[in-house]
Amino acid sequence: MQERYMRLALDNAKAMKGQTDPNPLVGCVLVKEGRIIGVGAHLKAGEAHAEINALRMAGSEAKGSTAYVTLEPCSHTGRTGPCAVELVEAGVKEVIIATLDPNPLVSGNGVRILEEGGVHVQTGILEKEAVQLNDVFNYSIVNRMPYVTLKAAVSLDGKIAAKSGDSKWITSSEARQDVHRLRSENQAIIVGVDTVLKDNPSLTARIANGRNPIRVIVDSHLRTPVDAIVTTDGLAPTWIFTAAEPRHLPEKQERLEKAGVRLVQTSGTTKVDLKEMMAYLYKESISSALLEAGGTLNAAFLEAQLVQKLIVYVAPKLIGGALAPTFLEGSGIDKMADALPLAFSEATQIGPDLKLTAYVVSDKAAN
Amino acid sequence: MQERYMRLALDNAKAMKGQTDPNPLVGCVLVKEGRIIGVGAHLKAGEAHAEINALRMAGSEAKGSTAYVTLEPCSHTGRTGPCAVELVEAGVKEVIIATLDPNPLVSGNGVRILEEGGVHVQTGILEKEAVQLNDVFNYSIVNRMPYVTLKAAVSLDGKIAAKSGDSKWITSSEARQDVHRLRSENQAIIVGVDTVLKDNPSLTARIANGRNPIRVIVDSHLRTPVDAIVTTDGLAPTWIFTAAEPRHLPEKQERLEKAGVRLVQTSGTTKVDLKEMMAYLYKESISSALLEAGGTLNAAFLEAQLVQKLIVYVAPKLIGGALAPTFLEGSGIDKMADALPLAFSEATQIGPDLKLTAYVVSDKAAN
Repeated sequence: MQERYMRLALDNAKAMKGQTDPNPLVGCVLVKEGRIIGVGAHLKAGEAHAEINALRMAGSEAKGSTAYVTLEPCSHTGRTGPCAVELVEAGVKEVIIATLDPNPLVSGNGVRILEEGGVHVQTGILEKEAVQLNDVFNYSIVNRMPYVTLKAAVSLDGKIAAKSGDSKWITSSEARQDVHRLRSENQAIIVGVDTVLKDNPSLTARIANGRNPIRVIVDSHLRTPVDAIVTTDGLAPTWIFTAAEPRHLPEKQERLEKAGVRLVQTSGTTKVDLKEMMAYLYKESISSALLEAGGTLNAAFLEAQLVQKLIVYVAPKLIGGALAPTFLEGSGIDKMADALPLAFSEATQIGPDLKLTAYVVSDKAAN
Repeated sequence: MQERYMRLALDNAKAMKGQTDPNPLVGCVLVKEGRIIGVGAHLKAGEAHAEINALRMAGSEAKGSTAYVTLEPCSHTGRTGPCAVELVEAGVKEVIIATLDPNPLVSGNGVRILEEGGVHVQTGILEKEAVQLNDVFNYSIVNRMPYVTLKAAVSLDGKIAAKSGDSKWITSSEARQDVHRLRSENQAIIVGVDTVLKDNPSLTARIANGRNPIRVIVDSHLRTPVDAIVTTDGLAPTWIFTAAEPRHLPEKQERLEKAGVRLVQTSGTTKVDLKEMMAYLYKESISSALLEAGGTLNAAFLEAQLVQKLIVYVAPKLIGGALAPTFLEGSGIDKMADALPLAFSEATQIGPDLKLTAYVVSDKAAN
């Protein structure tokens, strides 16, 4: 029974995926005498939290009810008072919490307020699901870096293109549609300048109601063309990160900035300092990013421990070729024991292709 | 109801996997007045066919019954008379067949004998399952070549080893156990001499009741060491295929043959002629082979259109490295449109790894 209510709270939370950034997904269900008297979710940063929406729906009935919340009620004052206080004041007699706040600075504070207010508190119902629901938030709030999902499309033999560079298209239109959904769920999309030079992509989320991510170009020496689609279409902000002293024509910077592009110099001498870039993005309220790069930039991201999740679309075809590229190049490892451990979480069919989801296994990752 | 009986026949057929080569898997169920009166399967080449076993169980009750057979009853005389004739003579009044004989030379003959004997015949019940059950037999009988399954173990980024060559182990012990089962289900295992030189493997099926496949080494210039495990352990026959004029020390051939190794020269000038090798294997009653080779030999097999199925174990780890090998090298394609089309049939979890099964899509393949 507890699980049934918590699952409804989780379903409501999940439905808001992509619209609460940089806030977590949260759902709340209020139950009294076996009857649901309020349902709420957090809809948008700056608006009411899930508990407040559920309390409003319940009105005076909230007194004596049990609240199911997917995340520990907050202990800070925002647009409303702290949710923990609001629950106490509404007379809720019991609060069932799926998972505590991941932020070590405030974790447990909500529970303490509730208990001090005489509310009975229980935690850990459907905790795993609740933690996974907010993997992005959990990671970014603790590490103060965006949560990065590396996306790749490969043939069954692991190639991302033929040796000629031709990669249009490895995967099906269904899989490519799924990538547009992924873009829409992330606040930023990161590519290397080579991708811009080779494909001149628009990097937008071309699905119904798709939210375009900020386009981030890793471009140490400012080689992005002034007339590239990403610098001219105006469909989403484009930020270009360069090395400390990029080698480029003097007027290029000015022309790009005039086109509305934001240029950010990092302190990397000849190459963009990726950690600095990611910290910058986090400070600009970006907590999630989709990395759609080639094998070299992917390797640099993984080496810098900046990737938390991988989504690999595998197409039922063979490309072959000792010289055909894979999605992870760089120098690689020498001993199998040094391979980076992952954990698969899902394998689903998308059209004729398979979509494999894996998480980087480390103490840092929230999963 | 028909499907229920046919499924039982299929289940019995399937249970004999690995023990009927070079014959197909076949099951039979006899039903009379809603009661199963006989169940049979083909157990071993040279022994009774499924129908005969079922008829024996039914005895005189067979008269007036309905037979469910997963494969068209045969029209040739073996250890017993043709099954089609036996069914007629036993007084079976109806025969339900899942799929016709794949051999174009005899396909339909069994049905004709039955109908001429006054038996009502119906075909196509659970046909797809019945065809898949005997993909090996169907392919080899029509093409007169062994059915080849390419097996590979890769990291999520598509590597079969680190750039140093280290590949022990990419996949889990559970996945490696599954490979031993695969070996046991195939009549031959094919590797290149480089694998013998690098790993000195035993290439046996190390599972309970495992049947060791014949070990086939593609070794153009007879570089297999005289003291290799495959030439000395005596656990299974070892056949080495060479080019027409292998460059090797004169006494080596003699020493290998003395050790019990069979040497077969193909007409390939500097390299083993793979098609000739496979035709030789088929003539030696080998209808299934597991290819456990590196990227170069795999590419040669695929180029010669000798592979029908791929089983790829994907480990949740990243190896990286532009120089790390993949399971398909060679020259590869230039245009994505020329990629070899496959169709995924399964994605299952084995321990922490994923096992992906795909079929080569072509007119030649039985699937």
